Order: sequence, then structure tokens, then C-alpha cells
Amino acid sequence: MVQSKLTATTSIRIRFSETDALGIAWHGNFLTYFEDGRDAFGDKYGLHYLDIFNNGFVAPIVNVNCDYKKMIYYGDTILIDTTYENCASSKLILHYKIYTPETNETIATGSTTQVFLETATKKLQLRPPAFLLEWKQKHQLI
Amino acid sequence: MVQSKLTATTSIRIRFSETDALGIAWHGNFLTYFEDGRDAFGDKYGLHYLDIFNNGFVAPIVNVNCDYKKMIYYGDTILIDTTYENCASSKLILHYKIYTPETNETIATGSTTQVFLETATKKLQLRPPAFLLEWKQKHQLI
Amino acid sequence: MVQSKLTATTSIRIRFSETDALGIAWHGNFLTYFEDGRDAFGDKYGLHYLDIFNNGFVAPIVNVNCDYKKMIYYGDTILIDTTYENCASSKLILHYKIYTPETNETIATGSTTQVFLETATKKLQLRPPAFLLEWKQKHQLI
Amino acid sequence: MVQSKLTATTSIRIRFSETDALGIAWHGNFLTYFEDGRDAFGDKYGLHYLDIFNNGFVAPIVNVNCDYKKMIYYGDTILIDTTYENCASSKLILHYKIYTPETNETIATGSTTQVFLETATKKLQLRPPAFLLEWKQKHQLI
Repeated sequence: MVQSKLTATTSIRIRFSETDALGIAWHGNFLTYFEDGRDAFGDKYGLHYLDIFNNGFVAPIVNVNCDYKKMIYYGDTILIDTTYENCASSKLILHYKIYTPETNETIATGSTTQVFLETATKKLQLRPPAFLLEWKQKHQLI
Repeated sequence: MVQSKLTATTSIRIRFSETDALGIAWHGNFLTYFEDGRDAFGDKYGLHYLDIFNNGFVAPIVNVNCDYKKMIYYGDTILIDTTYENCASSKLILHYKIYTPETNETIATGSTTQVFLETATKKLQLRPPAFLLEWKQKHQLI
Repeated sequence: MVQSKLTATTSIRIRFSETDALGIAWHGNFLTYFEDGRDAFGDKYGLHYLDIFNNGFVAPIVNVNCDYKKMIYYGDTILIDTTYENCASSKLILHYKIYTPETNETIATGSTTQVFLETATKKLQLRPPAFLLEWKQKHQLI
Repeated sequence: MVQSKLTATTSIRIRFSETDALGIAWHGNFLTYFEDGRDAFGDKYGLHYLDIFNNGFVAPIVNVNCDYKKMIYYGDTILIDTTYENCASSKLILHYKIYTPETNETIATGSTTQVFLETATKKLQLRPPAFLLEWKQKHQLI
């Protein structure tokens, strides 16, 4: 796994609706936090879901993984680092690190893997779409 | 408000993810319970969201209202009665009663109002669509 | 209904996970947006859920109402105004207006009503708790 | 990984609120489907979250993993098999297989890992709690 230098950081605050009866953020909501990280990454580097869509593709998630290290509570502010993994295949792999702003303690780490489907044909792209290769060149990843 | 005799009943069990830090079902999840009631109504009477869609319309919600009477907890089983309000206008108004199975205590009551948009044109239907009038005739509501 | 001058404004961006198969923000998520407005109001005026909790009370929601005027989509940024209604009874009534930042178009309006329960006894407070009266005095509402 | 013979099967139907703007069930909701599977397993084998709680423990999730194979849509009925992995350590590892009822096609597979904290002390249990060992004996896993 070769993580690139491309990282975006965003901050969110835990909503009351995101807590569960244990009083902590429900584990499933971390996939929403990953989504926030993904959006921040896309905004910063021009690879937002809407950019992908405007190029004629959708990018459904085919794998998600999350390790939970520390409980978080209603009202807590957390930071999310989202880092691009530079892989040769036709996939979009992002790594997430969620941590506390003051003490830099890791709350959770994880990753998502997305594939590309042509919107019109729903066909899985076995090779990286042209727009993705251009994007990689622009960011000196190939 | 003239409620019809058309009522469907469904049962659900409160998920852990639906609870909040108060240990109760988060109030916003009741709109999901209403949705379950709406689906059960649609299944029973042939007015499911997919039936509406197959007739060329979508039915977005324009109002929702909910009164909360009693707290419910993880693992609780609840019943939802969904009742059709027979109104002359081009709306779909449903009333919901959520209650306990054994003691029949009211947990919440509420309603949703939906309008009809033609899927193709996105145009709001100021008069009831033909398929809705047929449906009403079939159920002796007009 | 006497709305006070106490209003807080906050901004959010629609998450992908908040959309539904119609491509718009699912109506139930507006209760989460109201929650964001409520938190922003509480932060600004010192009546945050955690402030209430630290005074020995919880404030469950007993009514919610929402009128939907305009559809919103993934990636849209919206503004939420949350305004306090100055009522004499032992309730916390907040009004919400969700609107577009540039054109000021109304997306939705609504309200929530909360009651106060003493955390220790779970007893409903028929009179406003002392901390609430102090808060009102501080803000020249009584 | 030694999966046991202990498997529970449950059925759910995709809610409209669970779909996203791609028209499919949003990937994050699969953690809720896993939760439904977990509850069904707990009900069948007497290891429900509430059983764990009544024994003086909570069991937060420390890892979740999900592979998505096939898109599912609003109204689809899916089956969830939840299988216990018999591990010696103080963990609760469950494997999930989500599939279509008629054609038996795999929709997603995944797992969750939970640890045990004593509710009173919040202390992580490095050895399996007594109630878990009893449960394993009862089910001939040790």
C-alpha cells in the first residue's frame, strides 16, 4: 500500500442523533464521517463525487473497513484526515484517520474502495477512466 | 378531517442504531417508522410508492407532523396503524398511530402530506392524477 | 406565537448519505438539520443540550412539524435560522427556517417543542425550571 | 478463522430512507443490516445485546468490514445469515452474509468484532467474561 502525499483534513462535531444508547457515537455513523472526509478530499483535489459524475461515471463503494480505538460523545469535535492511496488498478482507495484536535489521539482508522461504473451503460471499468488518468498526471501520481 | 376506513397495521422492533444518548429511540427515527407504516399501507391497498412511480408520478412529502407521548427503548416492539384521509384535493394524507402491542398505549401520533409530481415533467399535479381517482373508486372513496 | 429576537444561523452541506432514490435530501433528514440549528442556537445563547443536562434536566422533544417547500440536492449548502419562541409555559419551542444562501429562497420551515424532565427523577416539570427562568431574565425575555 | 455451526437467518426489506441518490441502498446502511443480523443471532442463541448488558457488560464494536458485491434497491427483500466465529480470545466475532431470497446471490459479506467492557468500571475484559464461557459451554464451543 503506497499512500500518496494527497491528504485533506476536515472537522466535524458529533450530532445528538448520531449517539446511541451507550451514549457514544454509534459505530455505523463513522461511515458518514468517512463520507465527510471523502467530500473534503474531493473538494480540495478536484475529485469530488460530482466531478466523477460530470465525467460520466459513478463510483460505488465495494469495500469499507473501520477500526475503532476510542469512544466519542455528543458535542465532541473530531478531525478527519483523508489520504489517497496511489494504486495502478481502476479503483479509488482512500484511507481515513479520525482523531482528537487537541491531543491528537486516534479515534478510528479505516478505508474505502470504490470502483468506476460508466453511468450510461452501468459497465464496470476494468481500466482507469481517462479522466482519472488525467487527474493522476495533474497530481504527479503517474 | 375525514379519516377513511382504510387502515394498515405493521409491527417493527427498535434497532440499537435508532437509540440516542438518552437511551430512547431518537425522535427523528419516527419518520422512518411512519415510512414503514406508509409502505405497509401501500402494500395492502395497492398504493405503494412503486405503484405511484409505475403510474408516472413521484409523491414527495410536503408536511410532516409528530406528537410524542411515550418514550420507547432498544428492543421494544411497536405497532403502527396507518390510515388514509379521504380528501378531495390532489394530496395523499396519511395518519399514523404508534402504540404498544400489549397495553395499547399510544407512543406517538402524526401525519404526512404528499403531493404528486409527474416524473417526466416534474410538474405539480393540481388535480388528482387519473390513477389516483381510479384507486379511490376501487376503494369506494368517491 | 411570540417569536423572540433570539435567532442563531448555521450553515450545513447536504451529505450524499442524506439523499434518497429521488436524488433529493430525504425528508426525515430535515429533523437532523433542525438539530444542527438547535445546537447552533444553544451554543450562541448558552442553552445547549449539555447546558440543560448540566443543570440536571433532559429536554425530550414532544412535537415536531415541518413544511417542505423546495427540494435540495447532494452538495447543496443551506442556511438554518433557529428562533426562540417566548412562551410562559415550561416548554422550549424553537422555530426553524431553512433557506438557500444566495437567493434566500425558503427550503423548509418547522418547529420543535421540548419539555423538561428532571434527570434524577424523570419527572415532568410543569413549571419552568429555575435555570430556565434565570436564562430568560438574562436575555430580557421576562 | 473457525466459523461455528451457530448461524441465524433474518429477513429485511430495504426502506426508501435507506436509498441514496444512486437509487440503491446507501453502503453505510449495511452496518444497520448487520445489526439486524446480530440481533437475530442474539435472539436465537441467547446472546442478545440485552443479555450481555444484563450480565454486567457492554460490547462495543472495534472493527467492521464489509465487501459489497451487488446493488440493492428500495423494496428489495434480503436475507442475512449471521454466523459465530469460535475464537479463544475475549472477543465476539460475527460474520454476515447478505443475499437474495430467490436466487441466492451474494449481495454483501462482512464481519464485526466486539470486545467486552464491564459496565460498572468501563474496564476492558482481557479474558472472556464468565457468562460468555458458560454460554460457549452450553453451545458446545469449548
